[in-house]
Amino acid sequence: MPHAFGYAAPAADKELDYFEFERREPKVDDVEIEIIYCGVCHSDLHQARDEWGGTVFPCVPGHEIVGKVTRVGNQVTKFKVGDRVGVGCMVDSCGHCHSCNEDHEQYCENGFVATYNGEDKHLGGVTYGGYSNRITVKESFVLRVSDKLDLAGVAPLLCAGITTYSPLRHWNVKAGDKVGVVGLGGLGHMAVKLAAAMGAEVTLFTTSPDKVEDAKRLGAKHVVISRDEEAMAKWRNSLDFIINTVAAPHDLDEYVSLLRLNGTMCLVGVPAESHPSPAVFNLISKRRSIAGSLIGGIAETQEMLDFCAEHGITSDIELIAMEDINKAYERMLQSDVKYRFVIDMATLKQP
Amino acid sequence: MPHAFGYAAPAADKELDYFEFERREPKVDDVEIEIIYCGVCHSDLHQARDEWGGTVFPCVPGHEIVGKVTRVGNQVTKFKVGDRVGVGCMVDSCGHCHSCNEDHEQYCENGFVATYNGEDKHLGGVTYGGYSNRITVKESFVLRVSDKLDLAGVAPLLCAGITTYSPLRHWNVKAGDKVGVVGLGGLGHMAVKLAAAMGAEVTLFTTSPDKVEDAKRLGAKHVVISRDEEAMAKWRNSLDFIINTVAAPHDLDEYVSLLRLNGTMCLVGVPAESHPSPAVFNLISKRRSIAGSLIGGIAETQEMLDFCAEHGITSDIELIAMEDINKAYERMLQSDVKYRFVIDMATLKQP
Repeated sequence: MPHAFGYAAPAADKELDYFEFERREPKVDDVEIEIIYCGVCHSDLHQARDEWGGTVFPCVPGHEIVGKVTRVGNQVTKFKVGDRVGVGCMVDSCGHCHSCNEDHEQYCENGFVATYNGEDKHLGGVTYGGYSNRITVKESFVLRVSDKLDLAGVAPLLCAGITTYSPLRHWNVKAGDKVGVVGLGGLGHMAVKLAAAMGAEVTLFTTSPDKVEDAKRLGAKHVVISRDEEAMAKWRNSLDFIINTVAAPHDLDEYVSLLRLNGTMCLVGVPAESHPSPAVFNLISKRRSIAGSLIGGIAETQEMLDFCAEHGITSDIELIAMEDINKAYERMLQSDVKYRFVIDMATLKQP
Repeated sequence: MPHAFGYAAPAADKELDYFEFERREPKVDDVEIEIIYCGVCHSDLHQARDEWGGTVFPCVPGHEIVGKVTRVGNQVTKFKVGDRVGVGCMVDSCGHCHSCNEDHEQYCENGFVATYNGEDKHLGGVTYGGYSNRITVKESFVLRVSDKLDLAGVAPLLCAGITTYSPLRHWNVKAGDKVGVVGLGGLGHMAVKLAAAMGAEVTLFTTSPDKVEDAKRLGAKHVVISRDEEAMAKWRNSLDFIINTVAAPHDLDEYVSLLRLNGTMCLVGVPAESHPSPAVFNLISKRRSIAGSLIGGIAETQEMLDFCAEHGITSDIELIAMEDINKAYERMLQSDVKYRFVIDMATLKQP
C-alpha cells in the first residue's frame, strides 16, 4: 500500500505531531492525489481535541484539500494524471438513499463518510484527512479545480466556500436581494464574497469596528457594528436573507428582527452551548424562519468551484508550514486569522 | 349613532359583564352586521386579563364573528342586506404598504387595526369586538359566508381556521404530503381537518391518550402520544411539514427531529415564556426550518371559507350563552372544550 505521512493528533490533550500511515492502492474508480495545500477549518480543532466527542485517535484532520492527480483507476473517466483537483468534507456516501439520489450526499440518510474520522470502508478503522502528503478518493467525490484560480486560495472553498454557497443558492439569493452576513471569519468572508458575486446587496454584521474596511473590500456594501443598538434598529424588517456564521452563543432575535416578511436566517455555525431561545412572536409577526444548512452536495460543490472560477473568487488566506499547525490552532481560538490558514504541504517532510 | 351592547372586561382582574357602547353609522364603504355568533379564542382571555399588556379597558373581546348584514353604505358593492357574513381578527389596515399591496394585511407594515383593542380611527378610543349585538366594518374586511355551512361552526374559522389554513397553503401542503399537527385544541382540530381536506396524510401528536379516537374522526390517519419516546422515534425524518399549535413552552427538538430533509415546523402559538432553545445541529443536519405564521390575509381568508364550503368543513363547537362566558374562560384554562366555545348572541339581552 502507498506509504503516507502527515500530522495527527495522538490524543485529545496532545498537540498534533508527525504521523505515518497507509493509503489504499487506487481501486478501479479511485483517484490518487498528491496534496499540495490543505485548509484549516475550525472543526479540525474541535475534532482533534475531541470537543464534539467521538474522535478516534490518532486523528489526521483536514477536509479542504487541493492537489494534483498522481494515479487513476482504470474505470476513472473524469480525471487524468496531472489534473488539479479538490476534496472536501466527504469521501463517500451510500449512493442509493433519497438524499443521495437527489445529489444531496451531505444529507445521506445512511450517513456520509467524512474525509477524516469517518469509517474507512476499505482499510478499516477511520479515514485520515488532508494534513498529509497524499490521499486516495473515489472519483465521484473528487472535484475539478480551474487553472484560473490560485490553488492555495481554493482549498477553503471546499468547506467554508460550499457551506455558505449552498444556502445562498437554496434560498434563491439573486441580484438585488438584501443579504445579511453575521460574522467575518472563515465562513463569513466567503459568504460576503459569494453573495456579492451573485449580485446581492450585502450587509455585514460584526462586533469588531476594525473589520469595517476589510468587509467593504471583500464586497459588503454596508457594515453594521452589531453592538450599536441604534445602527441595528435601522436595519429592522429590511433583509431578505441572513446567513449567520457565528458559532458562539448569541441573541438570535436581534438578527431575526432584521428580516422582512417571509425572510429566513440560516445558521451554519454549531454553538457548543445553546443560543438563547429565539422569541416565537418575532417569527410569527413577519412569517420569518430560522433554518440550518450543512456544507453542500458534490454536484453543487463543483458548481460553486466553477462559479468561483468565473468570478475570480478564492479565500483570503494565510499560508503556514505544517509544523506551525499547533500555533495556528491557538491563533484561530483568538480569531487571529484573515481569513483562513492554509497548510503548504511542501513544508511537510519526513523527519 | 347606533346603540350597541355586549360583554366587556371592565378591568384585568374583573369578570366580563354587561356593557353598552356606540357603533359608528355606516359610512359609504361600511357594512353593518347583526352578530349572530361569536367564537371564543384563547387570545380573548389573554387580552381581557391584560396578560399580553396594552389592553385598554373596558375591553369587548371577540374576533370570530358571523352574522347578517343589516345596512350597507352606498358605495358597497359586494354585500347587501340579509347576506351571511364574517369578520375575523382585522377590521382595517393601511392599504398602501408592500404587505397590504400583496394581500397580506395581517403583516401590514403600519400595523393592522385589530377587531378589538385596536385603534378606532372613526370614533376614537379602541375598537370593540364581537361579544356584542352588532358591528360596523369596512366592506373590504368583511367575508362572504356560504349558506351551505352551519353558521355557528363557521365563527371559529375566522381565526382558528385561517391561522392554520394560511401556513398549510404558504408551505405548499398538497395531496400525499406527510403533515404533523401538534396539539388538538381549537387550532389543532382545524389544522387536522384542513390538512386532511387538502389530501395530506395527517399525524396528530398529543399528550392525551383520550384524544386518539377523536383525532381520527377529525381526519388524522395516525395519532402519536408525544410522551411515548418509542412511538415518537418511529416518526423521525418522516414529515414534510409540521404545524405546531401548542402555546405552552415545550421541547421543540423532539418535533424538529421528525421533519425530513428541507422540512419546516411552523409555530402558530405564542408561549407566555420561551420554549427551551432548539438545537442548531438538529436544523443543520437536515436543512430544517422553524417558522411562524400569523392568521392570514383577507383574500386568503375568503379562499379558506370557500374551501371549507366546498369540503363541508366547520369547527367542532360547544354553543354557550353570553352570560356563561366567564365559566367558559375557566374551562378553556383546563382545556375542557371540544374544540371551540361559540357564543349564541340570541342569548345576549339588555338587562
